[in-house]
Amino acid sequence: MILLDGKKTAALLEVETKNRIALLKQQGMTPGLAVILVGEHPASQAYVRSKDQTCSRLGMHSRKLELPTATTQQELLRIIEQLNKDPNIHGILLQSPPPKHIQEKEVTLAIDPRKDVDGFHPLNVAKLVMEDSSGFIPCTPLGCRYLLHAYGISTRGAHVVVVGRSLIVGKPMALLLLQKGLGGDATVTIAHSQTPDLASITRRADILIAALGRPHALGAEHISPGTTVIDVGINRLVDRSTPSGYRLVGDVDFSALASKCHAITPVPGGVGPMTIAMLMQNTVMAAERFASRRN
Amino acid sequence: MILLDGKKTAALLEVETKNRIALLKQQGMTPGLAVILVGEHPASQAYVRSKDQTCSRLGMHSRKLELPTATTQQELLRIIEQLNKDPNIHGILLQSPPPKHIQEKEVTLAIDPRKDVDGFHPLNVAKLVMEDSSGFIPCTPLGCRYLLHAYGISTRGAHVVVVGRSLIVGKPMALLLLQKGLGGDATVTIAHSQTPDLASITRRADILIAALGRPHALGAEHISPGTTVIDVGINRLVDRSTPSGYRLVGDVDFSALASKCHAITPVPGGVGPMTIAMLMQNTVMAAERFASRRN
Repeated sequence: MILLDGKKTAALLEVETKNRIALLKQQGMTPGLAVILVGEHPASQAYVRSKDQTCSRLGMHSRKLELPTATTQQELLRIIEQLNKDPNIHGILLQSPPPKHIQEKEVTLAIDPRKDVDGFHPLNVAKLVMEDSSGFIPCTPLGCRYLLHAYGISTRGAHVVVVGRSLIVGKPMALLLLQKGLGGDATVTIAHSQTPDLASITRRADILIAALGRPHALGAEHISPGTTVIDVGINRLVDRSTPSGYRLVGDVDFSALASKCHAITPVPGGVGPMTIAMLMQNTVMAAERFASRRN
Repeated sequence: MILLDGKKTAALLEVETKNRIALLKQQGMTPGLAVILVGEHPASQAYVRSKDQTCSRLGMHSRKLELPTATTQQELLRIIEQLNKDPNIHGILLQSPPPKHIQEKEVTLAIDPRKDVDGFHPLNVAKLVMEDSSGFIPCTPLGCRYLLHAYGISTRGAHVVVVGRSLIVGKPMALLLLQKGLGGDATVTIAHSQTPDLASITRRADILIAALGRPHALGAEHISPGTTVIDVGINRLVDRSTPSGYRLVGDVDFSALASKCHAITPVPGGVGPMTIAMLMQNTVMAAERFASRRN
């Protein structure tokens, strides 16, 4: 069994990212990422901290905006407008989920598509469907694809089953794998909560991508021997034996699947670090595009 | 075997469409569709004629713009700009394919998304992905979905295999069937030219949607008994025995599949008439939205 080590792969990828940042700095430019967090959501705070630390480690400019829960949508839109104009900020992301009085769709629409490093702006969503490479692709699907590539697992002609149809993971993952060319050309099945007899579908996968958001939802009965398993889930389970009081588990039951599959991502240390690595790549790309527009 | 009669279903649907048109006329408004054809492509000319005739039959306003092949992109963009402003035109479509010197993507982007009854504008593509019902959905996938609905064939929990990954049919079809709720909730597999052993994938379908664009590409070996088959293909085969010198055939071999499947669309008379019926519905919807913005 091959462990698809996201932490190691992300670290290797950082070498390339750093080179690109160095080139930009030679042109007098430091890629800048603004992360907006509204409210006090513990998991979100941890994600934002991790993004901030990664920016610092890579020598990127990072702006962390932690706003109170009471922030109005109008205030938020004003902040985004300023960030859109700010030449030192090349990527903007709103940490999800915002409080309920914020309409995430409206806010996403306000972000300059050229700074939308999360790839959630409608124009970037459309570009993914249209195979137009001038947009931004959501970081988690990008990270999954890169991990497969890094371990030499080809998607071309492979049957990939994606479990989950969310806008953040399931759908962009399917669209990415369907694209023509390297990293795409897969036959893709999308299954979800309305799929009866899920195991009969997932067992046909050469590559199984689990993005249900339910801890240990997929077990040994869901895969055939030799399957590659990408576990997108990051679920917090209460665990009093740990210092934090919880532990992270994926959407698949790792210990039950590990001996049966060809390759598998651990949780944590699989897709999570890859998502952050891709966010850094998207931000660097946004800065590179900014530089080439300026020149 | 049930024949999924698109001609009959489209005719029944016209009753509803006419009622909606009558209501609009009571408000002093006639839905108007502008169809732009650049160059002399015989199949395109036939399509445009058919759209024009349907508009007339329904009492809609139709503007047929047949432009010479030499029309420049700039001229075309100017015409679209005028149509965007024209209060008597609620739907605009550019008949595909335009001549090679026209960048279809640029032209599509110039159409007001609120008049984009073909559903090809990036903002409408994104709305389909995001399950935002304020956009327009491409007519052929809409027509296929309606036909299934009209014959009481539920997509919920069904395994639908879509063969073809085009922007016009395959991808929007898959996205539509994946949506939550009535007419969606299907488990969807998208197969295409890079799918090895296509029959092993298509034989698993409860509903098979053929959109390859290759005459008689799918035969009896591609389906299991009891499958519902929707044939999107409209291919011209040379046939000297017919007055026109050609005959239309689908992407599936109808005579080979008919006895094996649960239900099947004929070609012609299946998806074709449904596509036009949906174009009329989209145009009426565009006019209704225009009326409600005006009020």
